[in-house]
Amino acid sequence: MLVSGGLDSATVAALARRDGFEVYALSVRYGQRHTAELAAAEWVARSVGSAEHLVIDVALDRFGGSALTTESPVPTGRRQADMGTDIPSTYVPARNTVFLSLALGWAEVLGSSDLFIGANAVDYSGYPDCRPEYLAAFQNLANLATRAGVEGVGLRVHAPLLDKSKAEIVALGTELGVDFSATVSCYLATPTGQACGACDACVLRRKGFADAGMPDPTRYRPGVDA
Amino acid sequence: MLVSGGLDSATVAALARRDGFEVYALSVRYGQRHTAELAAAEWVARSVGSAEHLVIDVALDRFGGSALTTESPVPTGRRQADMGTDIPSTYVPARNTVFLSLALGWAEVLGSSDLFIGANAVDYSGYPDCRPEYLAAFQNLANLATRAGVEGVGLRVHAPLLDKSKAEIVALGTELGVDFSATVSCYLATPTGQACGACDACVLRRKGFADAGMPDPTRYRPGVDA
Repeated sequence: MLVSGGLDSATVAALARRDGFEVYALSVRYGQRHTAELAAAEWVARSVGSAEHLVIDVALDRFGGSALTTESPVPTGRRQADMGTDIPSTYVPARNTVFLSLALGWAEVLGSSDLFIGANAVDYSGYPDCRPEYLAAFQNLANLATRAGVEGVGLRVHAPLLDKSKAEIVALGTELGVDFSATVSCYLATPTGQACGACDACVLRRKGFADAGMPDPTRYRPGVDA
Repeated sequence: MLVSGGLDSATVAALARRDGFEVYALSVRYGQRHTAELAAAEWVARSVGSAEHLVIDVALDRFGGSALTTESPVPTGRRQADMGTDIPSTYVPARNTVFLSLALGWAEVLGSSDLFIGANAVDYSGYPDCRPEYLAAFQNLANLATRAGVEGVGLRVHAPLLDKSKAEIVALGTELGVDFSATVSCYLATPTGQACGACDACVLRRKGFADAGMPDPTRYRPGVDA
Protein backbone atom coordinates (compact mmCIF):
# COMPACT_ATOMS: atom_id res chain seq x y z
CA MET A 1 0.00 0.00 0.00
CA LEU A 2 1.24 3.40 -0.95
CA VAL A 3 0.97 5.68 2.07
CA SER A 4 1.72 9.36 1.65
CA GLY A 5 0.46 10.45 5.04
CA GLY A 6 -2.37 12.52 3.62
CA LEU A 7 -6.10 12.28 4.18
CA ASP A 8 -6.70 9.92 1.26
CA SER A 9 -4.06 7.32 2.04
CA ALA A 10 -5.04 7.30 5.73
CA THR A 11 -8.58 6.45 4.68
CA VAL A 12 -7.44 3.75 2.24
CA ALA A 13 -5.30 2.21 4.98
CA ALA A 14 -8.24 2.10 7.38
CA LEU A 15 -10.44 0.63 4.66
CA ALA A 16 -7.96 -2.11 3.77
CA ARG A 17 -7.54 -3.03 7.42
CA ARG A 18 -11.33 -3.17 7.85
CA ASP A 19 -11.48 -5.51 4.85
CA GLY A 20 -9.00 -7.87 6.46
CA PHE A 21 -5.83 -7.08 4.53
CA GLU A 22 -2.47 -7.24 6.23
CA VAL A 23 -0.90 -3.88 5.47
CA TYR A 24 2.64 -3.39 4.16
CA ALA A 25 3.02 0.36 3.90
CA LEU A 26 5.33 1.99 1.38
CA SER A 27 6.25 5.67 1.35
CA VAL A 28 8.68 7.52 -0.86
CA ARG A 29 11.06 10.35 -0.07
CA TYR A 30 11.17 11.75 -3.59
CA GLY A 31 12.53 15.21 -3.02
CA GLN A 32 9.16 16.70 -2.06
CA ARG A 33 9.14 20.01 -0.20
CA HIS A 34 6.64 18.73 2.32
CA THR A 35 8.64 15.98 4.00
CA ALA A 36 6.40 16.35 7.05
CA GLU A 37 4.07 13.99 5.21
CA LEU A 38 6.57 11.18 5.82
CA ALA A 39 6.19 11.47 9.60
CA ALA A 40 2.43 11.43 9.04
CA ALA A 41 2.85 8.35 6.83
CA GLU A 42 4.66 6.60 9.64
CA TRP A 43 1.78 7.46 11.94
CA VAL A 44 -0.77 6.16 9.41
CA ALA A 45 1.19 2.94 8.94
CA ARG A 46 1.35 2.40 12.69
CA SER A 47 -2.29 3.31 13.27
CA VAL A 48 -3.48 0.42 11.10
CA GLY A 49 -1.01 -2.05 12.60
CA SER A 50 1.09 -2.40 9.45
CA ALA A 51 3.31 -5.45 9.32
CA GLU A 52 6.03 -3.22 7.91
CA HIS A 53 6.57 0.36 6.76
CA LEU A 54 9.32 1.09 4.25
CA VAL A 55 10.42 4.55 3.19
CA ILE A 56 12.29 4.40 -0.10
CA ASP A 57 14.41 7.26 -1.44
CA VAL A 58 14.03 8.18 -5.11
CA ALA A 59 15.35 11.60 -6.03
CA LEU A 60 12.69 12.66 -8.53
CA ASP A 61 13.78 16.24 -7.85
CA ARG A 62 16.84 15.50 -9.99
CA PHE A 63 14.49 15.49 -12.99
CA GLY A 64 12.74 18.68 -11.86
CA GLY A 65 9.57 19.66 -13.67
CA SER A 66 7.32 20.11 -10.64
CA ALA A 67 6.57 22.84 -8.13
CA LEU A 68 6.64 20.14 -5.45
CA THR A 69 10.29 19.27 -6.07
CA THR A 70 11.82 22.56 -7.20
CA GLU A 71 11.85 26.21 -6.16
CA SER A 72 8.95 27.00 -8.53
CA PRO A 73 6.12 28.60 -6.58
CA VAL A 74 3.25 26.39 -5.42
CA PRO A 75 -0.04 28.05 -6.40
CA THR A 76 -1.99 29.41 -3.44
CA GLY A 77 -5.28 31.17 -2.90
CA ARG A 78 -7.14 29.42 -5.73
CA ARG A 79 -10.71 28.32 -5.26
CA GLN A 80 -11.59 24.86 -6.51
CA ALA A 81 -13.43 26.41 -9.47
CA ASP A 82 -10.17 28.11 -10.51
CA MET A 83 -8.15 24.91 -10.52
CA GLY A 84 -9.76 23.75 -13.75
CA THR A 85 -8.71 20.60 -15.51
CA ASP A 86 -5.27 21.68 -16.70
CA ILE A 87 -2.31 19.79 -15.33
CA PRO A 88 -1.19 21.88 -12.33
CA SER A 89 2.40 22.86 -11.64
CA THR A 90 2.35 20.57 -8.60
CA TYR A 91 2.05 17.54 -10.87
CA VAL A 92 5.20 15.41 -10.51
CA PRO A 93 6.03 13.68 -13.79
CA ALA A 94 5.42 9.93 -13.62
CA ARG A 95 5.21 9.99 -9.82
CA ASN A 96 2.40 7.50 -9.46
CA THR A 97 4.02 5.22 -12.04
CA VAL A 98 7.28 5.23 -10.10
CA PHE A 99 5.44 4.68 -6.80
CA LEU A 100 3.25 1.88 -8.13
CA SER A 101 6.29 0.22 -9.72
CA LEU A 102 8.03 0.18 -6.36
CA ALA A 103 4.90 -1.20 -4.72
CA LEU A 104 4.75 -3.84 -7.43
CA GLY A 105 8.32 -4.93 -6.77
CA TRP A 106 7.75 -5.22 -3.04
CA ALA A 107 4.40 -6.97 -3.54
CA GLU A 108 6.05 -9.55 -5.72
CA VAL A 109 8.68 -10.32 -3.08
CA LEU A 110 5.99 -10.47 -0.37
CA GLY A 111 3.79 -12.71 -2.49
CA SER A 112 0.99 -10.16 -2.35
CA SER A 113 -1.53 -9.80 -5.15
CA ASP A 114 -3.09 -6.53 -3.98
CA LEU A 115 -1.74 -3.01 -4.43
CA PHE A 116 -3.57 -0.10 -2.80
CA ILE A 117 -3.36 3.55 -3.73
CA GLY A 118 -5.35 6.56 -2.53
CA ALA A 119 -5.74 8.07 -6.00
CA ASN A 120 -8.79 10.21 -6.39
CA ALA A 121 -10.09 11.63 -9.65
CA VAL A 122 -13.09 13.70 -8.63
CA ASP A 123 -12.03 16.90 -6.92
CA TYR A 124 -8.81 17.42 -8.74
CA SER A 125 -8.90 15.92 -12.17
CA GLY A 126 -5.75 17.54 -13.51
CA TYR A 127 -3.32 14.73 -12.69
CA PRO A 128 -3.22 12.26 -15.59
CA ASP A 129 -1.96 9.47 -13.33
CA CYS A 130 -5.05 9.56 -11.11
CA ARG A 131 -7.52 8.62 -13.85
CA PRO A 132 -9.34 5.28 -13.90
CA GLU A 133 -7.96 4.38 -17.33
CA TYR A 134 -4.43 4.97 -16.06
CA LEU A 135 -4.92 2.69 -13.07
CA ALA A 136 -6.47 -0.01 -15.26
CA ALA A 137 -3.44 0.20 -17.56
CA PHE A 138 -1.10 -0.16 -14.60
CA GLN A 139 -2.93 -3.25 -13.42
CA ASN A 140 -2.61 -4.71 -16.90
CA LEU A 141 1.11 -3.88 -16.91
CA ALA A 142 1.59 -5.36 -13.45
CA ASN A 143 0.23 -8.67 -14.62
CA LEU A 144 2.65 -8.75 -17.55
CA ALA A 145 5.66 -7.44 -15.65
CA THR A 146 6.01 -10.01 -12.96
CA ARG A 147 6.14 -13.61 -11.89
CA ALA A 148 2.44 -13.29 -11.08
CA GLY A 149 1.78 -12.58 -14.73
CA VAL A 150 3.76 -15.55 -15.94
CA GLU A 151 2.17 -17.81 -13.35
CA GLY A 152 -1.34 -16.53 -13.94
CA VAL A 153 -1.90 -15.05 -10.47
CA GLY A 154 -4.02 -11.94 -10.90
CA LEU A 155 -2.60 -8.76 -9.41
CA ARG A 156 -5.15 -6.10 -8.53
CA VAL A 157 -4.67 -2.36 -8.18
CA HIS A 158 -7.17 -1.10 -5.62
CA ALA A 159 -8.06 2.59 -5.74
CA PRO A 160 -11.17 2.61 -3.57
CA LEU A 161 -11.39 6.41 -3.41
CA LEU A 162 -11.19 6.96 -7.13
CA ASP A 163 -14.80 8.07 -7.56
CA LYS A 164 -15.26 9.75 -4.21
CA SER A 165 -15.37 13.45 -3.44
CA LYS A 166 -13.23 14.80 -0.60
CA ALA A 167 -16.39 15.16 1.49
CA GLU A 168 -17.22 11.50 0.93
CA ILE A 169 -13.66 10.52 1.85
CA VAL A 170 -13.83 12.60 5.04
CA ALA A 171 -17.13 10.94 5.96
CA LEU A 172 -15.80 7.46 5.21
CA GLY A 173 -12.55 8.01 7.09
CA THR A 174 -14.40 9.38 10.09
CA GLU A 175 -16.69 6.36 10.09
CA LEU A 176 -13.57 4.15 10.06
CA GLY A 177 -12.08 6.03 13.00
CA VAL A 178 -9.27 7.83 11.17
CA ASP A 179 -7.76 10.68 13.20
CA PHE A 180 -7.31 13.22 10.42
CA SER A 181 -5.49 15.63 12.73
CA ALA A 182 -2.44 13.41 12.33
CA THR A 183 -2.48 13.46 8.52
CA VAL A 184 -0.67 16.03 6.37
CA SER A 185 -1.98 17.07 2.95
CA CYS A 186 -0.45 20.54 2.62
CA TYR A 187 2.10 21.06 -0.17
CA LEU A 188 3.75 23.75 1.93
CA ALA A 189 3.56 22.07 5.32
CA THR A 190 6.05 23.20 7.95
CA PRO A 191 8.58 20.62 9.16
CA THR A 192 6.18 19.77 12.00
CA GLY A 193 3.26 19.33 9.60
CA GLN A 194 1.37 22.58 10.09
CA ALA A 195 -0.72 23.40 7.03
CA CYS A 196 -0.71 26.65 5.06
CA GLY A 197 -4.45 26.65 4.40
CA ALA A 198 -3.94 28.21 0.97
CA CYS A 199 -2.39 25.69 -1.45
CA ASP A 200 -4.69 23.59 -3.66
CA ALA A 201 -4.31 20.57 -1.36
CA CYS A 202 -5.35 22.64 1.68
CA VAL A 203 -8.26 24.27 -0.17
CA LEU A 204 -9.68 20.94 -1.31
CA ARG A 205 -9.17 19.34 2.07
CA ARG A 206 -10.77 22.20 3.96
CA LYS A 207 -13.72 22.18 1.57
CA GLY A 208 -14.03 18.42 2.10
CA PHE A 209 -14.57 18.87 5.82
CA ALA A 210 -16.97 21.77 5.23
CA ASP A 211 -19.01 19.86 2.64
CA ALA A 212 -19.13 16.82 4.91
CA GLY A 213 -20.34 19.03 7.76
CA MET A 214 -17.45 17.89 9.94
CA PRO A 215 -15.12 20.04 12.06
CA ASP A 216 -11.74 20.50 10.37
CA PRO A 217 -9.10 19.05 12.71
CA THR A 218 -6.18 20.09 10.51
CA ARG A 219 -3.22 21.64 12.34
CA TYR A 220 -2.75 24.99 10.58
CA ARG A 221 0.14 27.41 10.90
CA PRO A 222 -0.31 30.16 13.45
CA GLY A 223 -2.54 32.86 12.04
CA VAL A 224 -4.40 30.56 9.65
CA ASP A 225 -8.06 30.08 10.52
CA ALA A 226 -9.33 26.51 10.67
CA MET B 1 17.60 5.95 -22.56
CA LEU B 2 18.22 3.33 -19.94
CA VAL B 3 21.92 2.51 -19.90
CA SER B 4 23.15 -0.32 -17.73
CA GLY B 5 26.66 -0.45 -19.11
CA GLY B 6 26.24 -3.91 -20.60
CA LEU B 7 26.60 -5.10 -24.16
CA ASP B 8 22.93 -4.56 -25.04
CA SER B 9 22.54 -0.99 -23.80
CA ALA B 10 25.85 0.01 -25.42
CA THR B 11 24.49 -1.23 -28.74
CA VAL B 12 21.14 0.53 -28.27
CA ALA B 13 22.97 3.77 -27.45
CA ALA B 14 25.06 3.52 -30.62
CA LEU B 15 21.94 2.72 -32.64
CA ALA B 16 19.98 5.69 -31.29
CA ARG B 17 22.87 8.01 -31.98
CA ARG B 18 23.18 6.67 -35.53
CA ASP B 19 19.46 7.36 -35.99
CA GLY B 20 19.92 10.97 -34.96
CA PHE B 21 18.56 10.94 -31.42
CA GLU B 22 20.07 13.19 -28.78
CA VAL B 23 20.84 10.82 -25.92
CA TYR B 24 19.91 11.45 -22.29
CA ALA B 25 21.31 8.46 -20.44
CA LEU B 26 19.76 7.15 -17.24
CA SER B 27 21.33 4.53 -15.00
CA VAL B 28 20.15 3.21 -11.66
CA ARG B 29 22.13 2.22 -8.57
CA TYR B 30 19.54 -0.23 -7.27
CA GLY B 31 21.58 -2.25 -4.83
CA GLN B 32 23.04 -4.53 -7.48
CA ARG B 33 26.14 -6.52 -6.59
CA HIS B 34 27.84 -5.59 -9.81
CA THR B 35 28.20 -1.84 -9.38
CA ALA B 36 31.07 -1.94 -11.87
CA GLU B 37 28.37 -1.72 -14.52
CA LEU B 38 27.74 1.90 -13.47
CA ALA B 39 31.26 2.94 -14.43
CA ALA B 40 30.71 1.15 -17.74
CA ALA B 41 27.39 2.99 -18.12
CA GLU B 42 29.19 6.28 -17.70
CA TRP B 43 31.60 5.23 -20.41
CA VAL B 44 28.73 4.20 -22.72
CA ALA B 45 26.94 7.49 -22.10
CA ARG B 46 30.08 9.45 -22.90
CA SER B 47 30.95 7.36 -25.94
CA VAL B 48 27.74 8.38 -27.70
CA GLY B 49 28.06 12.04 -26.72
CA SER B 50 25.09 12.02 -24.34
CA ALA B 51 23.68 15.41 -23.49
CA GLU B 52 23.41 14.23 -19.89
CA HIS B 53 23.91 11.09 -17.81
CA LEU B 54 21.99 10.71 -14.56
CA VAL B 55 22.54 7.95 -12.03
CA ILE B 56 19.54 7.61 -9.75
CA ASP B 57 19.59 5.66 -6.47
CA VAL B 58 16.66 3.34 -5.75
CA ALA B 59 17.33 0.75 -3.07
CA LEU B 60 15.50 -2.22 -4.57
CA ASP B 61 17.67 -4.40 -2.34
CA ARG B 62 15.44 -3.30 0.55
CA PHE B 63 12.71 -5.46 -0.99
CA GLY B 64 15.08 -8.39 -1.55
CA GLY B 65 13.85 -11.24 -3.70
CA SER B 66 16.75 -11.42 -6.15
CA ALA B 67 20.18 -13.00 -6.27
CA LEU B 68 21.43 -9.73 -7.76
CA THR B 69 20.55 -7.69 -4.69
CA THR B 70 20.96 -10.14 -1.82
CA GLU B 71 23.48 -12.70 -0.61
CA SER B 72 21.65 -15.51 -2.44
CA PRO B 73 24.07 -17.30 -4.77
CA VAL B 74 24.13 -16.27 -8.43
CA PRO B 75 23.92 -19.43 -10.57
CA THR B 76 27.16 -20.24 -12.38
CA GLY B 77 28.38 -22.89 -14.79
CA ARG B 78 25.06 -23.36 -16.58
CA ARG B 79 24.97 -23.81 -20.32
CA GLN B 80 22.34 -21.85 -22.21
CA ALA B 81 20.31 -25.04 -22.70
CA ASP B 82 20.15 -25.44 -18.90
CA MET B 83 18.76 -21.96 -18.32
CA GLY B 84 15.35 -22.94 -19.59
CA THR B 85 12.40 -20.60 -19.49
CA ASP B 86 11.85 -20.45 -15.73
CA ILE B 87 12.28 -17.11 -14.05
CA PRO B 88 15.89 -17.18 -12.82
CA SER B 89 16.98 -16.16 -9.34
CA THR B 90 18.73 -13.15 -10.86
CA TYR B 91 15.37 -11.68 -11.85
CA VAL B 92 14.82 -8.44 -9.89
CA PRO B 93 11.11 -7.93 -9.16
CA ALA B 94 9.64 -5.08 -11.20
CA ARG B 95 13.09 -3.75 -12.09
CA ASN B 96 12.30 -2.80 -15.66
CA THR B 97 9.01 -1.22 -14.57
CA VAL B 98 10.81 0.92 -12.00
CA PHE B 99 13.53 1.85 -14.53
CA LEU B 100 11.09 2.67 -17.32
CA SER B 101 8.98 4.73 -14.90
CA LEU B 102 12.01 6.80 -13.99
CA ALA B 103 12.88 7.21 -17.67
CA LEU B 104 9.28 8.26 -18.29
CA GLY B 105 9.45 10.95 -15.61
CA TRP B 106 12.68 12.36 -16.97
CA ALA B 107 11.44 12.15 -20.57
CA GLU B 108 8.38 14.15 -19.65
CA VAL B 109 10.46 16.91 -18.09
CA LEU B 110 12.80 16.93 -21.09
CA GLY B 111 9.90 16.99 -23.53
CA SER B 112 11.11 13.75 -25.10
CA SER B 113 8.71 11.29 -26.69
CA ASP B 114 11.15 8.41 -27.06
CA LEU B 115 12.28 5.95 -24.41
CA PHE B 116 14.98 3.41 -25.26
CA ILE B 117 15.73 0.14 -23.49
CA GLY B 118 18.09 -2.70 -24.36
CA ALA B 119 15.61 -5.43 -23.45
CA ASN B 120 16.13 -8.64 -25.31
CA ALA B 121 13.80 -11.62 -25.30
CA VAL B 122 15.57 -14.19 -27.42
CA ASP B 123 18.50 -15.71 -25.58
CA TYR B 124 17.10 -15.46 -22.10
CA SER B 125 13.38 -15.58 -22.08
CA GLY B 126 12.91 -16.05 -18.36
CA TYR B 127 12.45 -12.39 -17.42
CA PRO B 128 8.76 -11.44 -17.69
CA ASP B 129 9.62 -7.77 -18.08
CA CYS B 130 11.63 -8.32 -21.26
CA ARG B 131 8.71 -9.66 -23.31
CA PRO B 132 7.21 -7.74 -26.23
CA GLU B 133 3.74 -7.74 -24.66
CA TYR B 134 5.18 -6.22 -21.49
CA LEU B 135 6.89 -3.40 -23.40
CA ALA B 136 3.73 -2.71 -25.42
CA ALA B 137 1.78 -2.47 -22.15
CA PHE B 138 4.32 -0.03 -20.75
CA GLN B 139 4.04 2.16 -23.83
CA ASN B 140 0.27 2.15 -23.41
CA LEU B 141 0.66 3.08 -19.74
CA ALA B 142 3.16 5.82 -20.54
CA ASN B 143 0.66 7.49 -22.82
CA LEU B 144 -1.98 7.48 -20.11
CA ALA B 145 0.33 8.43 -17.25
CA THR B 146 1.66 11.72 -18.45
CA ARG B 147 1.09 15.12 -19.92
CA ALA B 148 1.91 13.57 -23.29
CA GLY B 149 -1.08 11.30 -22.92
CA VAL B 150 -3.43 14.12 -22.03
CA GLU B 151 -2.10 16.27 -24.83
CA GLY B 152 -2.12 13.48 -27.39
CA VAL B 153 1.63 13.37 -28.01
CA GLY B 154 2.56 9.76 -28.64
CA LEU B 155 5.30 8.35 -26.41
CA ARG B 156 7.20 5.43 -27.87
CA VAL B 157 9.15 2.70 -26.07
CA HIS B 158 11.96 1.58 -28.35
CA ALA B 159 13.44 -1.85 -27.70
CA PRO B 160 15.36 -2.38 -30.92
CA LEU B 161 17.16 -5.52 -29.69
CA LEU B 162 14.04 -7.32 -28.58
CA ASP B 163 14.08 -9.93 -31.33
CA LYS B 164 17.83 -10.22 -31.75
CA SER B 165 20.13 -12.99 -30.58
CA LYS B 166 23.30 -12.07 -28.69
CA ALA B 167 25.29 -12.93 -31.82
CA GLU B 168 23.21 -10.51 -33.86
CA ILE B 169 23.64 -7.82 -31.21
CA VAL B 170 27.42 -8.37 -31.18
CA ALA B 171 27.49 -8.07 -34.98
CA LEU B 172 25.33 -4.95 -34.97
CA GLY B 173 27.30 -3.26 -32.18
CA THR B 174 30.57 -4.04 -33.92
CA GLU B 175 29.24 -2.55 -37.16
CA LEU B 176 28.30 0.58 -35.19
CA GLY B 177 31.78 0.83 -33.68
CA VAL B 178 30.93 -0.14 -30.10
CA ASP B 179 34.01 -1.03 -28.04
CA PHE B 180 32.62 -3.98 -26.12
CA SER B 181 35.75 -4.28 -24.00
CA ALA B 182 34.46 -1.30 -22.02
CA THR B 183 31.05 -2.84 -21.29
CA VAL B 184 30.25 -4.98 -18.25
CA SER B 185 27.59 -7.71 -18.37
CA CYS B 186 28.81 -10.01 -15.58
CA TYR B 187 26.56 -10.41 -12.54
CA LEU B 188 29.63 -11.08 -10.42
CA ALA B 189 31.96 -8.48 -11.90
CA THR B 190 34.85 -7.33 -9.75
CA PRO B 191 34.85 -3.66 -8.69
CA THR B 192 37.01 -2.91 -11.73
CA GLY B 193 34.63 -4.72 -14.05
CA GLN B 194 36.45 -8.00 -14.62
CA ALA B 195 34.02 -10.76 -15.60
CA CYS B 196 33.65 -14.17 -13.95
CA GLY B 197 33.02 -16.03 -17.19
CA ALA B 198 30.60 -18.40 -15.47
CA CYS B 199 27.35 -16.61 -14.58
CA ASP B 200 24.43 -16.73 -17.01
CA ALA B 201 25.20 -13.23 -18.29
CA CYS B 202 28.82 -14.19 -19.02
CA VAL B 203 27.84 -17.48 -20.66
CA LEU B 204 25.34 -15.81 -22.99
CA ARG B 205 27.72 -12.99 -23.82
CA ARG B 206 30.63 -15.28 -24.52
CA LYS B 207 28.44 -17.46 -26.74
CA GLY B 208 27.28 -14.31 -28.55
CA PHE B 209 30.83 -13.48 -29.60
CA ALA B 210 31.53 -17.10 -30.54
CA ASP B 211 28.34 -17.43 -32.62
CA ALA B 212 29.08 -14.12 -34.33
CA GLY B 213 32.59 -15.34 -35.14
CA MET B 214 34.10 -12.34 -33.39
CA PRO B 215 36.96 -12.27 -30.88
CA ASP B 216 35.66 -11.84 -27.31
CA PRO B 217 37.17 -8.60 -25.93
CA THR B 218 35.67 -9.06 -22.46
CA ARG B 219 38.03 -8.36 -19.58
CA TYR B 220 37.90 -11.54 -17.53
CA ARG B 221 39.26 -12.15 -14.05
CA PRO B 222 42.76 -13.59 -13.87
CA GLY B 223 42.62 -17.31 -14.57
CA VAL B 224 39.46 -17.17 -16.68
CA ASP B 225 40.00 -18.01 -20.34
CA ALA B 226 38.55 -15.57 -22.88
